[in-house]
Amino acid sequence: MTTLEQDQTALDELYSDFSAANLIPLWTTRSDLMPLSPRPAAVPYVWRWSELYPLAQRSGDLVPVGRGGERRAIALANPGLPGRPYATPTLWAAIQYLGPRETAPSHHHTQTAFRFVIDGEGVWTNVEGDPVAMRRGDLLLTPSWAFHEHQNTSDRPMAWIDGLDIPLVQQLDAGFFEFGPDKPGTTATPDRSRNERLWGHPGLRPIGAADQPSSPLMAYRWAHTDAALTAQLELADEGYPTTLEPGHAGVRYSNPTTGGDALVTMRTEFHRLRAGVRTAPRRIVGSAVWQVFDGEATVTLGEDRFTVKKGDLFAVPSWCEHSIEASTQADLFRFSDEPVYDALGLTRLAQQAVEGREVR
Amino acid sequence: MTTLEQDQTALDELYSDFSAANLIPLWTTRSDLMPLSPRPAAVPYVWRWSELYPLAQRSGDLVPVGRGGERRAIALANPGLPGRPYATPTLWAAIQYLGPRETAPSHHHTQTAFRFVIDGEGVWTNVEGDPVAMRRGDLLLTPSWAFHEHQNTSDRPMAWIDGLDIPLVQQLDAGFFEFGPDKPGTTATPDRSRNERLWGHPGLRPIGAADQPSSPLMAYRWAHTDAALTAQLELADEGYPTTLEPGHAGVRYSNPTTGGDALVTMRTEFHRLRAGVRTAPRRIVGSAVWQVFDGEATVTLGEDRFTVKKGDLFAVPSWCEHSIEASTQADLFRFSDEPVYDALGLTRLAQQAVEGREVR
Amino acid sequence: MTTLEQDQTALDELYSDFSAANLIPLWTTRSDLMPLSPRPAAVPYVWRWSELYPLAQRSGDLVPVGRGGERRAIALANPGLPGRPYATPTLWAAIQYLGPRETAPSHHHTQTAFRFVIDGEGVWTNVEGDPVAMRRGDLLLTPSWAFHEHQNTSDRPMAWIDGLDIPLVQQLDAGFFEFGPDKPGTTATPDRSRNERLWGHPGLRPIGAADQPSSPLMAYRWAHTDAALTAQLELADEGYPTTLEPGHAGVRYSNPTTGGDALVTMRTEFHRLRAGVRTAPRRIVGSAVWQVFDGEATVTLGEDRFTVKKGDLFAVPSWCEHSIEASTQADLFRFSDEPVYDALGLTRLAQQAVEGREVR
Amino acid sequence: MTTLEQDQTALDELYSDFSAANLIPLWTTRSDLMPLSPRPAAVPYVWRWSELYPLAQRSGDLVPVGRGGERRAIALANPGLPGRPYATPTLWAAIQYLGPRETAPSHHHTQTAFRFVIDGEGVWTNVEGDPVAMRRGDLLLTPSWAFHEHQNTSDRPMAWIDGLDIPLVQQLDAGFFEFGPDKPGTTATPDRSRNERLWGHPGLRPIGAADQPSSPLMAYRWAHTDAALTAQLELADEGYPTTLEPGHAGVRYSNPTTGGDALVTMRTEFHRLRAGVRTAPRRIVGSAVWQVFDGEATVTLGEDRFTVKKGDLFAVPSWCEHSIEASTQADLFRFSDEPVYDALGLTRLAQQAVEGREVR
Repeated sequence: MTTLEQDQTALDELYSDFSAANLIPLWTTRSDLMPLSPRPAAVPYVWRWSELYPLAQRSGDLVPVGRGGERRAIALANPGLPGRPYATPTLWAAIQYLGPRETAPSHHHTQTAFRFVIDGEGVWTNVEGDPVAMRRGDLLLTPSWAFHEHQNTSDRPMAWIDGLDIPLVQQLDAGFFEFGPDKPGTTATPDRSRNERLWGHPGLRPIGAADQPSSPLMAYRWAHTDAALTAQLELADEGYPTTLEPGHAGVRYSNPTTGGDALVTMRTEFHRLRAGVRTAPRRIVGSAVWQVFDGEATVTLGEDRFTVKKGDLFAVPSWCEHSIEASTQADLFRFSDEPVYDALGLTRLAQQAVEGREVR
Repeated sequence: MTTLEQDQTALDELYSDFSAANLIPLWTTRSDLMPLSPRPAAVPYVWRWSELYPLAQRSGDLVPVGRGGERRAIALANPGLPGRPYATPTLWAAIQYLGPRETAPSHHHTQTAFRFVIDGEGVWTNVEGDPVAMRRGDLLLTPSWAFHEHQNTSDRPMAWIDGLDIPLVQQLDAGFFEFGPDKPGTTATPDRSRNERLWGHPGLRPIGAADQPSSPLMAYRWAHTDAALTAQLELADEGYPTTLEPGHAGVRYSNPTTGGDALVTMRTEFHRLRAGVRTAPRRIVGSAVWQVFDGEATVTLGEDRFTVKKGDLFAVPSWCEHSIEASTQADLFRFSDEPVYDALGLTRLAQQAVEGREVR
Repeated sequence: MTTLEQDQTALDELYSDFSAANLIPLWTTRSDLMPLSPRPAAVPYVWRWSELYPLAQRSGDLVPVGRGGERRAIALANPGLPGRPYATPTLWAAIQYLGPRETAPSHHHTQTAFRFVIDGEGVWTNVEGDPVAMRRGDLLLTPSWAFHEHQNTSDRPMAWIDGLDIPLVQQLDAGFFEFGPDKPGTTATPDRSRNERLWGHPGLRPIGAADQPSSPLMAYRWAHTDAALTAQLELADEGYPTTLEPGHAGVRYSNPTTGGDALVTMRTEFHRLRAGVRTAPRRIVGSAVWQVFDGEATVTLGEDRFTVKKGDLFAVPSWCEHSIEASTQADLFRFSDEPVYDALGLTRLAQQAVEGREVR
Repeated sequence: MTTLEQDQTALDELYSDFSAANLIPLWTTRSDLMPLSPRPAAVPYVWRWSELYPLAQRSGDLVPVGRGGERRAIALANPGLPGRPYATPTLWAAIQYLGPRETAPSHHHTQTAFRFVIDGEGVWTNVEGDPVAMRRGDLLLTPSWAFHEHQNTSDRPMAWIDGLDIPLVQQLDAGFFEFGPDKPGTTATPDRSRNERLWGHPGLRPIGAADQPSSPLMAYRWAHTDAALTAQLELADEGYPTTLEPGHAGVRYSNPTTGGDALVTMRTEFHRLRAGVRTAPRRIVGSAVWQVFDGEATVTLGEDRFTVKKGDLFAVPSWCEHSIEASTQADLFRFSDEPVYDALGLTRLAQQAVEGREVR
């Protein structure tokens, strides 16, 4: 037996003993564990509304909503994360479908959630007993541990998207879940929820109200979002460059008690691009899911290019260069895990320099 | 010469030597310097709008507005602080009067300012070149070091109140002041200022806008304030006790980038009392100035009782027990120096327990 | 074909179409995705120093340290996370072994790291060019993105444990890594590093030094840790109950610029139990790794009981009830991912009430 | 009567009516109220230890320490603030003198205090019952509302300086004061106080201890201060410019639970200048008091120049340009009101650029 063979034998034995002792050496795994830059398993991907919505409809015919399954929600599963219902490693995104007069039962969980409505109306989500109307263009929050149930008060089905931090909370083993009462706590269908009546006044807060980690304002109405975006673009036209980039307006949904993100673990934003505008190519650490609310655009995600239109959703993995070019005026909802990276000091951004940006 | 006399002589000499050496002993001054509880020199006091406004009018006839004097503002001088134009030891409050077509010239200063409008319209305050309409019920901010000028575009005079932290900044020797251009930077009279168009959308902030110490939203319109107060009282009627006390609603003007006070050194609030409601007697460390916006009330300030109505202003010194009883529905604007005490760990509050208070 | 069969066929088709469209329904996965309470895949586990150290020694004979593999570090692989070199879902823990006169080359990465020394001396870790001696009982930090290399200046091997947030950063796709120069930047072996000379004075900070997310003090010496623990127990004996529990002292390594955790993503602590003391059973959300520094103890982790002694390491998964009973006086080093949960609002703690706890 | 005369009469009447109505116009007072830059009434001034100490001694002979007067403290009275025992508009500074075996009785107050010892030993200050030895070079804290008493256990008198925020708290009407027991709560004279035993370990904090607004470490010993300054200068000599300026080292006393100032309302620092070093001329908003601990220096305060030596104190008013030139190595203690300005957004600094400053 030569020295080299002896060495190899000794090494084989060593690795076998590592394995038996539940040990794994760094020197054979370093480049995978600690790559030079992020190598996400998740891939850039587009889910088409034209495919999603009919599948949701078919589910509506075949699958009842009820206790246990809890929601008729169908999750986007990133092909790079096979077998997992994760749009990205941290974000869960689904289409939820509620048939005429149906109710999704009450529960709460430590996972943070929101709903964004691409179309329709007639459903109220009761958050801690406060009925919140859901209508086209609205963002509705369900903070961690808030009881919630949904009821469709109309004779038509309604679908929307749900965003949650399920993958993050699962990886952190931080999920708690409890069922609520089986019967809806309220069947009221007010035009305006109590949280909006209390908190929906710009810059005004009830005296004595404590700061809260998640926004106490839990409904962000389309009319306000639309007005804010319109104003940004008009101000830029008037010579006050308050947009993100020329022709690219954007608002962040925020918590009026802190000014920070509306939700603790997810960032929620709405973007408007004028026809013909192309955003500066950009990479950030962390992942995002976008949904086209209106218009058409071409999205470049790394090496891939996709044409997207109303309802289409796409996932942007960490550190994937991305850019959006609007064919028509394009309105897009976006959510991401950026607050997690901000909180942990892991934020990184690379962006082609943009002229004229200034927000006062 | 007896021992006692010797001692007294020695003491006299000692005190005389102290004086010569610019020294003052504690043991003779302790009880004044460090009282058992605050002994403000400022006194509870009411200034009547019926007296203020005519004096402002007479000033309008006799005193030009111009460079040097800068503003036709007449300050409330607390009788307990003789010779000083201070409403309280930290707060300056004045009626400002601008005649038809008059302009108050541009300047900026480290002192923080706001305007609150009890009546009238037609004046625009240009803050950093952004023209802000002033109308009944509005609160308009002028953060520290922001250039500002006022112009009356109408054929009628207009008066409002100014609040500043002049006494505080003077005691801290922190005042800087610079004159701006003599001519107005803009004569535009837009209905809505740029800061409102950018920031006046509930819970929405421009992506990329940095946090700011003072609110970037610099106009708080009456319609919003009124709606917020109305909603609080209605919610309480519906069984959701979101008011400060039964029948007592209140909003704080806040900075949407932080959720904190709209201004760094002054707290600004608006209170509404239903007819017949009496607020729980309350003492706080720090002083405040209130103005009746509408209605009538009886104010108890320490041992004093005053009946107040629209436009009347009153000063509440530190630690002075106060309570307000509404004869009619009463709307009151309030500003105070509480952020100073919060920041310095000096806040103290004594309040008779109140049932049913809860703000979510 | 019966209705039921038809339905089943339709359902099968639906699920097949989901799969083809990269979709996964919630109703079949809800209980796994959103359990009633955390169900960690990671298991409670003990790695024995008596097994670890000889394997590290054998690696020292067989495996060179060099560029690419970078470190002769052997990671604890939780049996519940098969194939992954993760002690817990968020924490990487390893024994690192450096032979006489060996050097581990320079690199930096966004992953945060520390070293804790159970025995030995003679190695200096150069952090951003600042040589830091490593000796028994010391905690040495390597903040995110700080260049570091290790050199053994002695004729004897040295081993210690490394803790990193590799699993967390990998799941977040936030890892960046760069190689440094191949040759050590310095071969100096000062007794005290520059960061200690600048920052190692209790309660004193250099004027003008900015706050930093990670501690600028990067060496926490055993003499200080030992003295702090000794004092806590003595103070308790004198009637000032400053311990965590009777007979249980504990210190947290902190960042002198903020008072917070020494590292951004990991908490580091040292615990001392008097002989006979048993800690109150406790569950927390988040995972931890402990190492016995000295003494013997019995550890209860969920249903399992282990006897541990000097050098042994054990993993505590999320929400696993755990308690430690000291047979002799027992000193234990602990690190955890708690700052992540604190930052994301996911902290939960269940602890049997403990008498007499008070820290001033 | 001419028009001019009529006008003047009308104006006189107006001003008289203002006065009667407790009103003061801005236009006649603006330049005093809102100067172009701070115009402090306080003046630069030096108090000589050679004058102070003998006066304190004479007080020791003539004036008993006891209930009511509370302390044999003699305050520096800035000649620009006649009749007031204020070193600056916000800071109170005094020499306190305690004869052999004397006791200063227990009390507490919302005013924040500290002691700095220029010479001597033998006195213990009991802070909330924790006896704290006072020795040359030590800084000892008395946070707001902490009960404290002083006792001289030796046969020799001892003197030190007291710093308090009395003027600030008085202007804010925020002072509360209560007498404690007449008899000392403890006569123990431990070498090390309990707070030091619990908190005096660099970078280590008791697990479970909450953050506190004032430092829970209440004794900062000279040996640590001296070592920190020595290290800064040595590091600079070695090529690591960690000093404030070449030859100018400085430490700030900090709160280990937050990293911020040791006290809420006052900044405390220690500076060391090498012989021959002259600090860059500097202006800041806010005032400070310095005491020479050792050595000799020439101080330039605005237009004035003073030579100072051990024990001498000098006041630096707001925005007064100042510079210190060391004749010998000079050690100086400094306290200021800077935290107030930082908290209120009023900080301003003008400093001649300095080469080579860098603190890591």
